[in-house]
Amino acid sequence: MSSPDLHPDLEAVRFLLGTWEGAGKGVYPTIEPFAYREEVRISHVGKPFLVYGQRTWAESDGRPLHAETGYWRFPPGGRVELVLAHPTGVVEVEEGTIAGTTLELATTSVGRTATAKEVRTLARRVSVEGDVLRYTLDMEAVAEPLQRHLDAELRRTA
Amino acid sequence: MSSPDLHPDLEAVRFLLGTWEGAGKGVYPTIEPFAYREEVRISHVGKPFLVYGQRTWAESDGRPLHAETGYWRFPPGGRVELVLAHPTGVVEVEEGTIAGTTLELATTSVGRTATAKEVRTLARRVSVEGDVLRYTLDMEAVAEPLQRHLDAELRRTA
Repeated sequence: MSSPDLHPDLEAVRFLLGTWEGAGKGVYPTIEPFAYREEVRISHVGKPFLVYGQRTWAESDGRPLHAETGYWRFPPGGRVELVLAHPTGVVEVEEGTIAGTTLELATTSVGRTATAKEVRTLARRVSVEGDVLRYTLDMEAVAEPLQRHLDAELRRTA
Repeated sequence: MSSPDLHPDLEAVRFLLGTWEGAGKGVYPTIEPFAYREEVRISHVGKPFLVYGQRTWAESDGRPLHAETGYWRFPPGGRVELVLAHPTGVVEVEEGTIAGTTLELATTSVGRTATAKEVRTLARRVSVEGDVLRYTLDMEAVAEPLQRHLDAELRRTA
């Protein structure tokens, strides 16, 4: 397993590569607002997709909160596809567009295990300026319309 | 982000934890038989699920082959749930049972991106004896019935 060259199809999204660390804030009508820390890792293996993993933990006491893992794909024409697994027992496909260093995606498909409790629909905006990655995540839950849930700013640390 | 204790619900599956490395063989009516190397990482974050990532590369020339990432869940009653993302643009839910140190699962749900080419249904058997993990994977593709596709033996290296 060597360290391969970046696939040429990924040159336009090289700005996403790295380990990103920072903090965010979460809000939603059904919960108390909360502050979290986050680590995102985006890497590649020489093929035309990016490997993605993320975890968050509570600013207050360090307990683990959310995590997700999957792959980013970049079909021609400025399109973006994200396939994700969530430890809540949910798998999700998000699709959207990329313009410059900004990506906008929304859930197009959700699957779940027999014991998964919640299915949520997401809309995600990720924007990179140099070594700063900012994202917002809007969420539609069973009884709540699509609305802001997360807002975070991360810095590239590796 | 500290290194937390294993969640008590995972005591019975502690045998899965670690980094596993080894080799496997792939066959299918539509392709030439092939030999591959593999690395599997199974870890935890203190919550009642396991974090899973895997990649394979060709024995012949080291080029990357498949990868998958996701989470293992263990509902009561000897059940197993696996949520997976594949870089082919496919998300997948597998469900099954665990008995001793053997897990048997089959695909129960598949989702895909607009550009994903193939949707396959899988049946997976994973068995651990000490520091050896063996698995078989059967695959049903569009025009082929469910049959053996992969067979591998890995050793715990960390």
